Amino acid sequence: MEQNFSSYLLGDAVNELSKLPGIGKRTAMRMALHLLKQDQMHVNRLGESLIKMRQEMVFCKRCHNISEKEICGICANPKRNNSIICVVEDIRDVMAIENTSQYKGLYHVLGGLISPMDGVAPSDLHISTLIERISKENISEVIFALSATVEGDTTNFYIFKYIKGMDITVSSLARGVAIGGEIEYADEVTLGRSIVKRLPYTGA
Amino acid sequence: MEQNFSSYLLGDAVNELSKLPGIGKRTAMRMALHLLKQDQMHVNRLGESLIKMRQEMVFCKRCHNISEKEICGICANPKRNNSIICVVEDIRDVMAIENTSQYKGLYHVLGGLISPMDGVAPSDLHISTLIERISKENISEVIFALSATVEGDTTNFYIFKYIKGMDITVSSLARGVAIGGEIEYADEVTLGRSIVKRLPYTGA
Repeated sequence: MEQNFSSYLLGDAVNELSKLPGIGKRTAMRMALHLLKQDQMHVNRLGESLIKMRQEMVFCKRCHNISEKEICGICANPKRNNSIICVVEDIRDVMAIENTSQYKGLYHVLGGLISPMDGVAPSDLHISTLIERISKENISEVIFALSATVEGDTTNFYIFKYIKGMDITVSSLARGVAIGGEIEYADEVTLGRSIVKRLPYTGA
Repeated sequence: MEQNFSSYLLGDAVNELSKLPGIGKRTAMRMALHLLKQDQMHVNRLGESLIKMRQEMVFCKRCHNISEKEICGICANPKRNNSIICVVEDIRDVMAIENTSQYKGLYHVLGGLISPMDGVAPSDLHISTLIERISKENISEVIFALSATVEGDTTNFYIFKYIKGMDITVSSLARGVAIGGEIEYADEVTLGRSIVKRLPYTGA
């Protein structure tokens, strides 16, 4: 859109913005023109917050979650149950589970799922550090909280191979019809599985 | 999404990113996590290009287009026809028309359209400087290139009131069925107007 346009300053900004995920040239241009109309202070805050975040944030050496220190706040928290590890694909999954306030154990962020189609091999993920944690730390339970997709199942199975001999409970997230969800809108596979894996009704 | 999350650095970045137009908290979080995985150099380039753009770019004193100097490249170009002014709403309209390479006159960027519904009055726009330019510069034609909406028409009409007494050609963009467009997909209003305002067929 800006091919004939002479400003290299605007062009640079648009070019950098369009490298963000999901942002094309047009959206980047809209953002850049929006920023041009804002106070200098506001634009400085945006630019500096990004630079500072990248500079000072690291990944936790233990669970690969984001952190401001070598060991993240969850791993370092003495109130968490450090005998349970919840295995997730991504940092956003940690946030989603944390927001439920229902889990008080630790995490392990794989950084992706095994996917031969996308060229993601087990060695590209934080699987070896997970196996190491499970064998060295005093772990009693491993919870698989990966997507219910072919990639998620493959990854679960790959990890399970390593730990099935150990004296550890291995569990995975409950699957079924969503709470508050209407039966007629549930997908067939989920609904079918929900009937097969039905639970005793307790009246509670 | 990040309410229970302890990092103020990440929170700051997400907060600033979510002030961009069309970016919600979730998208901002995706962007921030994406940036965390990039090289420091890459993030610096993004942050610094935004700050520098805002610092060094100004709005042209004559036509209110963006510029790196007091007078923009279009206004300062001696090859442009400086007796024609094309009136547009936004800088992006300048870019769109420039990209056609079909127009060699000057521009005037209003910065919006008159809209009582949105509380935009004529005094909020660069209309007085347009009237001043038309009366002081040696202008022979004014082209209205505003949206064909109620707001666009109102703005055209408001400006026209001031200049209709002057010895100036006033024109507006041709409206009709798009070139390469299929008739059955043209909207009714455009198609109806295209029939009423039909042009002599020249065989060219």
